[in-house]
Amino acid sequence: MTKEQLVEQIKKKNSFLCIGLDVDLEKIPEHLLKLDDPIFEFNKQIIDATNHLTVAYKPNIAFYEAYGIKGWEALKKTIDYLNQQYPEIFTIADAKRGDIGNTSSRYAKAFFEDLNFNSITVAPYMGRDSIEPFLEFKDKFAILLTLTSNEGGLDFQTLEYNKEQLFETVLKKSLRWKNSENLMFVVGATRPEFFKIIRNIVPDHFLLVPGVGAQGGNLQDVCKYGLSDNVGLLINSSRGIIYASKDENFAQKAGEKALELQQEMQVILNK
Amino acid sequence: MTKEQLVEQIKKKNSFLCIGLDVDLEKIPEHLLKLDDPIFEFNKQIIDATNHLTVAYKPNIAFYEAYGIKGWEALKKTIDYLNQQYPEIFTIADAKRGDIGNTSSRYAKAFFEDLNFNSITVAPYMGRDSIEPFLEFKDKFAILLTLTSNEGGLDFQTLEYNKEQLFETVLKKSLRWKNSENLMFVVGATRPEFFKIIRNIVPDHFLLVPGVGAQGGNLQDVCKYGLSDNVGLLINSSRGIIYASKDENFAQKAGEKALELQQEMQVILNK
Repeated sequence: MTKEQLVEQIKKKNSFLCIGLDVDLEKIPEHLLKLDDPIFEFNKQIIDATNHLTVAYKPNIAFYEAYGIKGWEALKKTIDYLNQQYPEIFTIADAKRGDIGNTSSRYAKAFFEDLNFNSITVAPYMGRDSIEPFLEFKDKFAILLTLTSNEGGLDFQTLEYNKEQLFETVLKKSLRWKNSENLMFVVGATRPEFFKIIRNIVPDHFLLVPGVGAQGGNLQDVCKYGLSDNVGLLINSSRGIIYASKDENFAQKAGEKALELQQEMQVILNK
Repeated sequence: MTKEQLVEQIKKKNSFLCIGLDVDLEKIPEHLLKLDDPIFEFNKQIIDATNHLTVAYKPNIAFYEAYGIKGWEALKKTIDYLNQQYPEIFTIADAKRGDIGNTSSRYAKAFFEDLNFNSITVAPYMGRDSIEPFLEFKDKFAILLTLTSNEGGLDFQTLEYNKEQLFETVLKKSLRWKNSENLMFVVGATRPEFFKIIRNIVPDHFLLVPGVGAQGGNLQDVCKYGLSDNVGLLINSSRGIIYASKDENFAQKAGEKALELQQEMQVILNK
Protein backbone atom coordinates (compact mmCIF):
# COMPACT_ATOMS: atom_id res chain seq x y z
CA MET A 1 0.00 0.00 0.00
CA THR A 2 1.24 3.49 -0.78
CA LYS A 3 1.20 6.42 1.61
CA GLU A 4 -1.27 8.16 -0.72
CA GLN A 5 -3.67 5.21 -0.50
CA LEU A 6 -3.47 5.35 3.28
CA VAL A 7 -4.24 9.08 3.29
CA GLU A 8 -7.14 8.47 0.92
CA GLN A 9 -8.60 5.89 3.32
CA ILE A 10 -8.26 8.32 6.22
CA LYS A 11 -10.14 11.01 4.35
CA LYS A 12 -12.84 8.62 3.17
CA LYS A 13 -13.49 7.20 6.63
CA ASN A 14 -12.79 10.40 8.57
CA SER A 15 -10.64 8.28 10.81
CA PHE A 16 -6.97 7.78 11.60
CA LEU A 17 -7.65 4.99 14.05
CA CYS A 18 -5.53 1.85 14.34
CA ILE A 19 -6.89 -1.05 16.35
CA GLY A 20 -4.42 -3.24 18.21
CA LEU A 21 -5.26 -6.92 17.98
CA ASP A 22 -3.47 -8.05 21.16
CA VAL A 23 -5.39 -11.20 21.90
CA ASP A 24 -5.14 -12.65 25.39
CA LEU A 25 -7.13 -15.86 25.92
CA GLU A 26 -7.72 -14.86 29.53
CA LYS A 27 -9.51 -11.70 28.47
CA ILE A 28 -11.68 -12.80 25.54
CA PRO A 29 -15.29 -13.95 25.98
CA GLU A 30 -15.56 -17.46 27.39
CA HIS A 31 -17.92 -18.75 24.73
CA LEU A 32 -15.13 -18.40 22.15
CA LEU A 33 -12.79 -20.72 24.04
CA LYS A 34 -14.79 -23.77 22.92
CA LEU A 35 -14.04 -23.06 19.26
CA ASP A 36 -11.16 -24.56 17.26
CA ASP A 37 -9.29 -21.26 16.93
CA PRO A 38 -10.60 -18.77 19.50
CA ILE A 39 -7.91 -16.18 18.68
CA PHE A 40 -8.82 -15.97 15.00
CA GLU A 41 -12.56 -16.08 15.73
CA PHE A 42 -12.16 -13.18 18.18
CA ASN A 43 -10.15 -11.17 15.64
CA LYS A 44 -12.58 -11.90 12.81
CA GLN A 45 -15.58 -10.66 14.79
CA ILE A 46 -13.70 -7.56 16.00
CA ILE A 47 -12.59 -6.80 12.42
CA ASP A 48 -16.07 -7.31 10.96
CA ALA A 49 -17.52 -4.94 13.57
CA THR A 50 -14.91 -2.17 13.24
CA ASN A 51 -13.45 -2.15 9.70
CA HIS A 52 -15.57 0.82 8.56
CA LEU A 53 -14.25 2.92 11.46
CA THR A 54 -10.54 2.16 11.34
CA VAL A 55 -7.77 2.50 8.75
CA ALA A 56 -5.30 0.08 10.31
CA TYR A 57 -5.00 -3.09 12.38
CA LYS A 58 -1.95 -3.87 14.47
CA PRO A 59 -1.48 -7.35 15.94
CA ASN A 60 1.29 -7.31 18.54
CA ILE A 61 3.28 -10.40 17.62
CA ALA A 62 4.19 -11.22 21.24
CA PHE A 63 0.60 -12.18 21.95
CA TYR A 64 0.70 -14.74 19.13
CA GLU A 65 4.18 -16.09 19.87
CA ALA A 66 3.01 -16.70 23.44
CA TYR A 67 0.72 -19.42 22.06
CA GLY A 68 3.44 -21.10 19.99
CA ILE A 69 2.46 -22.77 16.71
CA LYS A 70 -1.27 -22.28 17.38
CA GLY A 71 -0.59 -18.59 17.84
CA TRP A 72 1.26 -18.37 14.52
CA GLU A 73 -1.57 -20.16 12.77
CA ALA A 74 -4.04 -17.65 14.22
CA LEU A 75 -1.82 -14.75 13.14
CA LYS A 76 -1.57 -16.14 9.62
CA LYS A 77 -5.34 -16.62 9.38
CA THR A 78 -5.90 -13.08 10.70
CA ILE A 79 -3.61 -11.37 8.21
CA ASP A 80 -4.94 -13.52 5.36
CA TYR A 81 -8.50 -12.57 6.33
CA LEU A 82 -7.58 -8.87 6.39
CA ASN A 83 -5.79 -9.03 3.04
CA GLN A 84 -8.67 -10.88 1.38
CA GLN A 85 -11.67 -9.11 2.90
CA TYR A 86 -10.33 -5.62 3.58
CA PRO A 87 -7.29 -5.04 1.33
CA GLU A 88 -7.71 -1.26 1.66
CA ILE A 89 -6.83 -1.43 5.37
CA PHE A 90 -3.21 -0.84 6.45
CA THR A 91 -1.69 -3.69 8.46
CA ILE A 92 1.08 -3.39 11.02
CA ALA A 93 3.06 -6.29 12.48
CA ASP A 94 3.99 -4.89 15.88
CA ALA A 95 7.14 -6.95 16.24
CA LYS A 96 9.84 -4.44 17.25
CA ARG A 97 12.47 -6.41 15.35
CA GLY A 98 16.03 -5.42 14.43
CA ASP A 99 19.20 -7.45 13.95
CA ILE A 100 22.35 -7.49 11.83
CA GLY A 101 21.72 -7.01 8.13
CA ASN A 102 21.39 -10.57 6.85
CA THR A 103 19.13 -11.41 9.80
CA SER A 104 16.92 -8.33 9.45
CA SER A 105 16.44 -9.39 5.83
CA ARG A 106 14.99 -12.63 7.16
CA TYR A 107 12.53 -10.81 9.38
CA ALA A 108 11.57 -8.54 6.50
CA LYS A 109 10.90 -11.55 4.30
CA ALA A 110 8.83 -13.22 7.02
CA PHE A 111 6.57 -10.25 7.67
CA PHE A 112 6.42 -8.54 4.25
CA GLU A 113 6.42 -11.52 1.90
CA ASP A 114 5.21 -14.63 3.72
CA LEU A 115 2.67 -12.97 6.00
CA ASN A 116 2.16 -10.01 3.64
CA PHE A 117 1.87 -7.22 6.21
CA ASN A 118 2.08 -3.61 4.93
CA SER A 119 4.46 -2.61 7.71
CA ILE A 120 6.43 -3.74 10.75
CA THR A 121 7.67 -1.94 13.86
CA VAL A 122 11.47 -2.00 14.30
CA ALA A 123 13.95 -1.02 17.05
CA PRO A 124 16.78 1.45 16.34
CA TYR A 125 19.51 0.40 18.78
CA MET A 126 21.54 -1.55 16.21
CA GLY A 127 21.55 1.32 13.70
CA ARG A 128 21.35 1.80 9.98
CA ASP A 129 22.21 -1.64 8.61
CA SER A 130 19.71 -3.28 10.97
CA ILE A 131 16.84 -1.21 9.52
CA GLU A 132 17.68 -0.67 5.84
CA PRO A 133 16.77 -4.27 4.89
CA PHE A 134 13.18 -3.42 5.90
CA LEU A 135 13.18 -0.30 3.71
CA GLU A 136 14.00 -2.11 0.48
CA PHE A 137 10.45 -3.31 -0.13
CA LYS A 138 8.27 -1.22 -2.42
CA ASP A 139 5.11 0.10 -0.76
CA LYS A 140 6.03 -1.45 2.59
CA PHE A 141 6.95 0.51 5.70
CA ALA A 142 9.27 0.11 8.68
CA ILE A 143 7.93 1.92 11.73
CA LEU A 144 10.89 2.92 13.88
CA LEU A 145 10.62 3.09 17.68
CA THR A 146 11.38 6.72 18.48
CA LEU A 147 9.82 7.82 21.74
CA THR A 148 7.85 5.06 23.40
CA SER A 149 4.86 5.38 25.72
CA ASN A 150 6.17 3.29 28.61
CA GLU A 151 7.91 4.59 31.73
CA GLY A 152 11.26 3.11 30.66
CA GLY A 153 10.99 5.15 27.48
CA LEU A 154 12.75 7.90 29.42
CA ASP A 155 15.68 5.70 30.49
CA PHE A 156 17.65 6.17 27.26
CA GLN A 157 15.50 7.88 24.60
CA THR A 158 15.70 11.32 26.19
CA LEU A 159 19.38 11.21 27.14
CA GLU A 160 20.85 14.47 25.99
CA TYR A 161 24.23 15.17 24.41
CA ASN A 162 25.19 18.25 22.46
CA LYS A 163 21.76 19.67 23.34
CA GLU A 164 20.06 16.91 21.38
CA GLN A 165 18.11 14.02 22.87
CA LEU A 166 18.71 10.45 21.68
CA PHE A 167 15.29 10.16 20.00
CA GLU A 168 16.03 13.32 17.99
CA THR A 169 19.30 11.82 16.80
CA VAL A 170 17.48 8.61 15.90
CA LEU A 171 15.01 10.61 13.81
CA LYS A 172 17.66 12.73 12.10
CA LYS A 173 20.02 9.87 11.31
CA SER A 174 17.20 7.66 10.04
CA LEU A 175 16.26 10.30 7.45
CA ARG A 176 19.66 9.70 5.84
CA TRP A 177 19.13 5.95 5.45
CA LYS A 178 18.43 4.47 2.04
CA ASN A 179 14.71 4.56 1.13
CA SER A 180 13.92 6.62 4.22
CA GLU A 181 10.62 7.59 2.60
CA ASN A 182 9.50 4.09 3.69
CA LEU A 183 9.92 5.00 7.36
CA MET A 184 7.22 5.82 9.85
CA PHE A 185 7.86 6.48 13.56
CA VAL A 186 6.44 5.25 16.85
CA VAL A 187 5.75 8.13 19.24
CA GLY A 188 3.83 7.46 22.45
CA ALA A 189 0.68 9.44 23.20
CA THR A 190 1.87 9.80 26.79
CA ARG A 191 4.48 12.33 25.62
CA PRO A 192 2.42 15.07 23.87
CA GLU A 193 5.01 17.76 24.75
CA PHE A 194 7.47 16.11 22.36
CA PHE A 195 5.31 16.10 19.23
CA LYS A 196 6.33 19.65 18.34
CA ILE A 197 10.04 18.73 18.36
CA ILE A 198 9.32 15.60 16.33
CA ARG A 199 7.20 17.36 13.72
CA ASN A 200 10.02 19.87 13.21
CA ILE A 201 12.30 17.00 12.19
CA VAL A 202 9.80 14.85 10.29
CA PRO A 203 7.02 17.15 9.05
CA ASP A 204 5.56 14.66 6.59
CA HIS A 205 6.20 11.12 7.81
CA PHE A 206 3.44 9.13 9.47
CA LEU A 207 3.60 8.69 13.23
CA LEU A 208 2.13 5.60 14.87
CA VAL A 209 0.87 6.68 18.28
CA PRO A 210 0.17 4.06 20.94
CA GLY A 211 -0.79 4.92 24.49
CA VAL A 212 -4.21 6.54 24.03
CA GLY A 213 -6.67 4.99 26.47
CA ALA A 214 -5.37 2.32 28.88
CA GLN A 215 -1.91 3.94 29.05
CA GLY A 216 -3.29 7.43 29.76
CA GLY A 217 -2.57 9.41 26.56
CA ASN A 218 -5.03 11.99 25.23
CA LEU A 219 -6.14 12.33 21.60
CA GLN A 220 -6.58 16.11 21.59
CA ASP A 221 -3.12 16.71 23.03
CA VAL A 222 -1.50 14.47 20.44
CA CYS A 223 -3.32 16.07 17.51
CA LYS A 224 -2.48 19.61 18.60
CA TYR A 225 1.14 19.23 17.49
CA GLY A 226 1.13 15.82 15.79
CA LEU A 227 -1.12 16.40 12.78
CA SER A 228 0.68 17.01 9.48
CA ASP A 229 -0.66 18.47 6.25
CA ASN A 230 -1.71 14.98 5.24
CA VAL A 231 -2.95 13.95 8.70
CA GLY A 232 0.20 11.88 9.26
CA LEU A 233 -1.05 10.14 12.40
CA LEU A 234 -2.24 6.66 13.18
CA ILE A 235 -3.63 6.56 16.70
CA ASN A 236 -3.65 3.09 18.16
CA SER A 237 -6.04 1.76 20.73
CA SER A 238 -5.92 -1.89 21.77
CA ARG A 239 -7.37 -2.87 25.13
CA GLY A 240 -9.81 0.07 25.26
CA ILE A 241 -11.57 -1.24 22.15
CA ILE A 242 -11.14 -5.00 21.90
CA TYR A 243 -11.87 -5.70 25.58
CA ALA A 244 -14.78 -3.30 25.90
CA SER A 245 -16.94 -6.26 26.90
CA LYS A 246 -16.45 -9.93 27.80
CA ASP A 247 -20.02 -10.85 26.86
CA GLU A 248 -21.37 -12.43 23.68
CA ASN A 249 -21.91 -8.92 22.30
CA PHE A 250 -18.18 -8.07 22.65
CA ALA A 251 -17.76 -7.21 18.96
CA GLN A 252 -20.69 -4.80 19.00
CA LYS A 253 -19.28 -3.12 22.12
CA ALA A 254 -15.86 -2.89 20.47
CA GLY A 255 -17.58 -1.23 17.50
CA GLU A 256 -19.18 1.31 19.83
CA LYS A 257 -15.83 2.18 21.42
CA ALA A 258 -14.21 2.49 17.98
CA LEU A 259 -17.08 4.73 16.86
CA GLU A 260 -16.48 7.06 19.83
CA LEU A 261 -12.85 7.51 18.82
CA GLN A 262 -13.70 7.84 15.11
CA GLN A 263 -16.24 10.56 15.89
CA GLU A 264 -13.70 12.43 17.98
CA MET A 265 -11.29 12.16 15.04
CA GLN A 266 -13.89 13.36 12.57
CA VAL A 267 -14.42 16.53 14.61
CA ILE A 268 -10.66 17.14 14.64
CA LEU A 269 -10.30 16.51 10.88
CA ASN A 270 -13.18 18.84 10.05
CA LYS A 271 -11.65 21.73 11.98
CA MET B 1 20.33 -23.40 34.49
CA THR B 2 22.38 -21.46 37.05
CA LYS B 3 25.45 -19.40 36.25
CA GLU B 4 27.50 -21.85 38.34
CA GLN B 5 26.34 -24.78 36.23
CA LEU B 6 27.35 -22.92 33.09
CA VAL B 7 30.81 -22.21 34.50
CA GLU B 8 31.13 -25.85 35.51
CA GLN B 9 30.36 -26.93 31.92
CA ILE B 10 32.95 -24.51 30.59
CA LYS B 11 35.65 -25.91 32.86
CA LYS B 12 34.68 -29.51 32.11
CA LYS B 13 34.75 -29.04 28.34
CA ASN B 14 37.55 -26.47 28.24
CA SER B 15 35.33 -24.49 25.96
CA PHE B 16 33.29 -21.29 26.05
CA LEU B 17 31.98 -21.78 22.55
CA CYS B 18 28.40 -21.02 21.52
CA ILE B 19 27.21 -22.32 18.17
CA GLY B 20 24.66 -20.24 16.26
CA LEU B 21 21.97 -22.36 14.63
CA ASP B 22 20.97 -19.91 11.88
CA VAL B 23 19.54 -22.30 9.36
CA ASP B 24 19.13 -21.09 5.80
CA LEU B 25 17.62 -23.64 3.42
CA GLU B 26 19.68 -22.19 0.60
CA LYS B 27 22.90 -23.00 2.42
CA ILE B 28 22.31 -26.46 3.84
CA PRO B 29 23.27 -29.67 2.00
CA GLU B 30 20.88 -30.51 -0.79
CA HIS B 31 20.30 -34.11 0.27
CA LEU B 32 18.53 -32.80 3.41
CA LEU B 33 15.94 -30.89 1.41
CA LYS B 34 14.13 -34.11 0.51
CA LEU B 35 13.37 -34.84 4.16
CA ASP B 36 10.17 -33.87 5.99
CA ASP B 37 11.88 -31.30 8.21
CA PRO B 38 15.27 -30.36 6.74
CA ILE B 39 15.84 -27.57 9.28
CA PHE B 40 15.50 -29.85 12.28
CA GLU B 41 17.46 -32.65 10.62
CA PHE B 42 20.31 -30.22 9.88
CA ASN B 43 20.30 -28.94 13.48
CA LYS B 44 20.16 -32.45 14.94
CA GLN B 45 23.19 -33.60 13.00
CA ILE B 46 25.13 -30.41 13.81
CA ILE B 47 24.27 -30.79 17.50
CA ASP B 48 25.21 -34.48 17.61
CA ALA B 49 28.58 -33.68 16.00
CA THR B 50 29.46 -30.68 18.20
CA ASN B 51 27.82 -31.01 21.64
CA HIS B 52 31.03 -32.20 23.36
CA LEU B 53 32.87 -29.08 22.11
CA THR B 54 30.35 -26.36 22.88
CA VAL B 55 28.60 -25.09 25.99
CA ALA B 56 25.76 -23.22 24.27
CA TYR B 57 23.54 -23.22 21.19
CA LYS B 58 21.91 -20.07 19.88
CA PRO B 59 19.21 -20.30 17.22
CA ASN B 60 18.54 -16.87 15.73
CA ILE B 61 14.75 -16.75 15.71
CA ALA B 62 14.56 -14.70 12.49
CA PHE B 63 15.75 -17.69 10.49
CA TYR B 64 12.86 -19.77 11.84
CA GLU B 65 10.20 -17.06 11.55
CA ALA B 66 11.21 -16.67 7.90
CA TYR B 67 9.75 -20.16 7.29
CA GLY B 68 6.45 -19.43 9.07
CA ILE B 69 4.70 -22.24 10.88
CA LYS B 70 7.12 -24.86 9.54
CA GLY B 71 9.96 -22.79 10.94
CA TRP B 72 8.36 -22.63 14.37
CA GLU B 73 7.84 -26.37 14.34
CA ALA B 74 11.52 -26.87 13.52
CA LEU B 75 12.53 -24.47 16.30
CA LYS B 76 10.32 -26.29 18.82
CA LYS B 77 11.76 -29.68 17.79
CA THR B 78 15.29 -28.29 18.03
CA ILE B 79 14.91 -26.87 21.54
CA ASP B 80 13.06 -29.99 22.70
CA TYR B 81 15.87 -32.15 21.34
CA LEU B 82 18.48 -30.04 23.13
CA ASN B 83 16.58 -30.10 26.42
CA GLN B 84 16.06 -33.85 26.27
CA GLN B 85 19.41 -35.03 24.94
CA TYR B 86 21.81 -32.37 26.23
CA PRO B 87 20.17 -30.65 29.22
CA GLU B 88 23.58 -29.48 30.48
CA ILE B 89 23.98 -27.19 27.45
CA PHE B 90 22.95 -23.54 27.74
CA THR B 91 20.34 -22.43 25.19
CA ILE B 92 19.90 -18.91 23.84
CA ALA B 93 16.90 -17.68 21.86
CA ASP B 94 18.48 -14.93 19.80
CA ALA B 95 15.30 -12.91 19.43
CA LYS B 96 16.30 -9.34 20.39
CA ARG B 97 12.86 -8.71 21.86
CA GLY B 98 11.67 -5.82 24.02
CA ASP B 99 8.27 -4.15 24.38
CA ILE B 100 6.09 -2.48 27.01
CA GLY B 101 5.84 -4.45 30.25
CA ASN B 102 2.73 -6.56 29.70
CA THR B 103 3.93 -7.44 26.21
CA SER B 104 7.47 -8.31 27.26
CA SER B 105 5.89 -10.67 29.80
CA ARG B 106 4.28 -12.44 26.85
CA TYR B 107 7.61 -12.86 25.07
CA ALA B 108 9.21 -14.10 28.29
CA LYS B 109 6.48 -16.68 28.71
CA ALA B 110 6.84 -17.80 25.09
CA PHE B 111 10.60 -18.32 25.21
CA PHE B 112 11.20 -19.32 28.85
CA GLU B 113 8.12 -21.42 29.57
CA ASP B 114 6.64 -22.73 26.35
CA LEU B 115 9.86 -23.25 24.42
CA ASN B 116 11.96 -23.63 27.61
CA PHE B 117 15.08 -21.74 26.53
CA ASN B 118 17.61 -20.84 29.24
CA SER B 119 17.98 -17.30 27.93
CA ILE B 120 16.87 -14.74 25.36
CA THR B 121 18.55 -11.72 23.80
CA VAL B 122 16.72 -8.41 24.41
CA ALA B 123 17.02 -4.82 23.13
CA PRO B 124 17.46 -1.91 25.56
CA TYR B 125 15.86 1.04 23.72
CA MET B 126 12.55 0.88 25.62
CA GLY B 127 14.25 0.83 29.03
CA ARG B 128 13.77 -0.78 32.39
CA ASP B 129 10.14 -1.91 32.30
CA SER B 130 10.67 -3.54 28.90
CA ILE B 131 13.43 -5.79 30.28
CA GLU B 132 12.48 -6.51 33.91
CA PRO B 133 9.72 -8.96 32.90
CA PHE B 134 12.47 -11.17 31.45
CA LEU B 135 14.49 -11.01 34.70
CA GLU B 136 11.73 -12.40 36.92
CA PHE B 137 12.37 -16.01 35.97
CA LYS B 138 14.56 -18.08 38.28
CA ASP B 139 17.66 -19.49 36.58
CA LYS B 140 16.80 -17.82 33.26
CA PHE B 141 18.79 -15.00 31.68
CA ALA B 142 18.07 -11.92 29.57
CA ILE B 143 21.05 -11.05 27.38
CA LEU B 144 20.97 -7.31 26.75
CA LEU B 145 22.24 -5.81 23.49
CA THR B 146 25.07 -3.53 24.58
CA LEU B 147 27.61 -3.01 21.83
CA THR B 148 26.77 -4.90 18.69
CA SER B 149 29.12 -6.24 16.03
CA ASN B 150 27.50 -4.65 12.98
CA GLU B 151 28.52 -1.39 11.34
CA GLY B 152 25.35 0.38 12.49
CA GLY B 153 26.33 -0.48 16.05
CA LEU B 154 28.24 2.78 16.04
CA ASP B 155 25.24 4.89 14.95
CA PHE B 156 23.81 5.27 18.45
CA GLN B 157 25.59 2.96 20.90
CA THR B 158 28.75 5.05 21.10
CA LEU B 159 27.09 8.47 21.18
CA GLU B 160 28.69 10.34 24.02
CA TYR B 161 27.11 12.66 26.54
CA ASN B 162 28.55 13.71 29.89
CA LYS B 163 31.73 11.86 28.88
CA GLU B 164 29.87 8.55 28.83
CA GLN B 165 28.87 6.56 25.77
CA LEU B 166 25.32 5.25 25.39
CA PHE B 167 26.37 1.60 25.80
CA GLU B 168 28.06 2.47 29.11
CA THR B 169 24.87 4.10 30.35
CA VAL B 170 22.90 1.05 29.22
CA LEU B 171 25.23 -1.18 31.24
CA LYS B 172 25.20 1.01 34.35
CA LYS B 173 21.46 1.60 34.41
CA SER B 174 20.71 -2.07 33.78
CA LEU B 175 22.66 -3.04 36.91
CA ARG B 176 20.07 -1.14 38.94
CA TRP B 177 17.13 -3.09 37.50
CA LYS B 178 15.36 -5.71 39.60
CA ASN B 179 17.05 -9.14 39.44
CA SER B 180 19.95 -7.71 37.47
CA GLU B 181 21.97 -10.81 38.41
CA ASN B 182 19.93 -12.49 35.66
CA LEU B 183 21.44 -10.22 33.01
CA MET B 184 24.13 -11.06 30.49
CA PHE B 185 25.33 -8.66 27.78
CA VAL B 186 25.90 -8.85 24.02
CA VAL B 187 29.25 -7.35 23.04
CA GLY B 188 30.50 -7.76 19.48
CA ALA B 189 33.91 -9.32 18.86
CA THR B 190 34.55 -6.64 16.24
CA ARG B 191 35.02 -4.09 19.05
CA PRO B 192 37.86 -5.57 21.20
CA GLU B 193 39.02 -2.10 22.31
CA PHE B 194 35.79 -1.67 24.29
CA PHE B 195 36.04 -4.83 26.40
CA LYS B 196 38.22 -3.10 29.00
CA ILE B 197 35.61 -0.36 29.56
CA ILE B 198 32.86 -2.96 29.73
CA ARG B 199 34.69 -5.22 32.20
CA ASN B 200 35.21 -2.22 34.47
CA ILE B 201 31.43 -1.82 34.70
CA VAL B 202 30.41 -5.49 34.74
CA PRO B 203 33.38 -7.49 36.05
CA ASP B 204 31.39 -10.68 36.71
CA HIS B 205 28.48 -10.89 34.28
CA PHE B 206 28.65 -13.15 31.26
CA LEU B 207 29.19 -11.52 27.87
CA LEU B 208 27.81 -13.14 24.73
CA VAL B 209 30.23 -12.30 21.94
CA PRO B 210 29.11 -12.65 18.31
CA GLY B 211 31.24 -11.61 15.38
CA VAL B 212 34.16 -14.04 15.57
CA GLY B 213 34.73 -15.55 12.13
CA ALA B 214 32.50 -14.40 9.27
CA GLN B 215 32.16 -10.88 10.75
CA GLY B 216 35.90 -10.47 11.29
CA GLY B 217 36.37 -10.55 15.08
CA ASN B 218 39.38 -12.22 16.69
CA LEU B 219 39.26 -14.61 19.66
CA GLN B 220 42.61 -13.62 21.21
CA ASP B 221 41.76 -9.92 21.15
CA VAL B 222 38.42 -10.50 22.83
CA CYS B 223 39.86 -12.71 25.55
CA LYS B 224 42.65 -10.28 26.40
CA TYR B 225 40.24 -7.91 28.14
CA GLY B 226 37.00 -9.88 28.11
CA LEU B 227 37.80 -12.86 30.35
CA SER B 228 36.54 -12.59 33.93
CA ASP B 229 37.56 -14.59 37.01
CA ASN B 230 34.93 -17.14 36.06
CA VAL B 231 35.62 -17.02 32.31
CA GLY B 232 32.47 -14.92 31.76
CA LEU B 233 32.52 -15.22 27.97
CA LEU B 234 30.42 -17.10 25.47
CA ILE B 235 31.97 -16.75 22.02
CA ASN B 236 29.48 -17.34 19.26
CA SER B 237 30.25 -18.70 15.83
CA SER B 238 27.47 -19.43 13.39
CA ARG B 239 28.24 -19.50 9.68
CA GLY B 240 31.92 -20.42 10.20
CA ILE B 241 30.90 -23.70 11.82
CA ILE B 242 27.53 -24.81 10.52
CA TYR B 243 28.28 -24.05 6.86
CA ALA B 244 31.81 -25.46 6.84
CA SER B 245 30.69 -27.85 4.12
CA LYS B 246 27.64 -28.37 1.90
CA ASP B 247 28.43 -32.07 1.36
CA GLU B 248 26.97 -35.12 3.05
CA ASN B 249 29.78 -34.91 5.62
CA PHE B 250 28.71 -31.38 6.67
CA ALA B 251 28.23 -32.35 10.33
CA GLN B 252 31.69 -33.88 10.56
CA LYS B 253 33.20 -30.74 8.98
CA ALA B 254 31.25 -28.56 11.42
CA GLY B 255 32.70 -30.68 14.23
CA GLU B 256 36.21 -30.07 12.90
CA LYS B 257 35.66 -26.29 12.81
CA ALA B 258 34.21 -26.37 16.34
CA LEU B 259 37.20 -28.42 17.50
CA GLU B 260 39.61 -25.79 16.13
CA LEU B 261 37.90 -23.08 18.16
CA GLN B 262 37.62 -25.29 21.25
CA GLN B 263 41.33 -26.06 21.11
CA GLU B 264 42.16 -22.38 20.79
CA MET B 265 39.96 -21.77 23.84
CA GLN B 266 41.61 -24.59 25.80
CA VAL B 267 45.03 -22.97 25.29
CA ILE B 268 43.66 -19.65 26.53
CA LEU B 269 41.98 -21.21 29.57
CA ASN B 270 45.12 -23.13 30.55
CA LYS B 271 47.24 -19.99 30.57
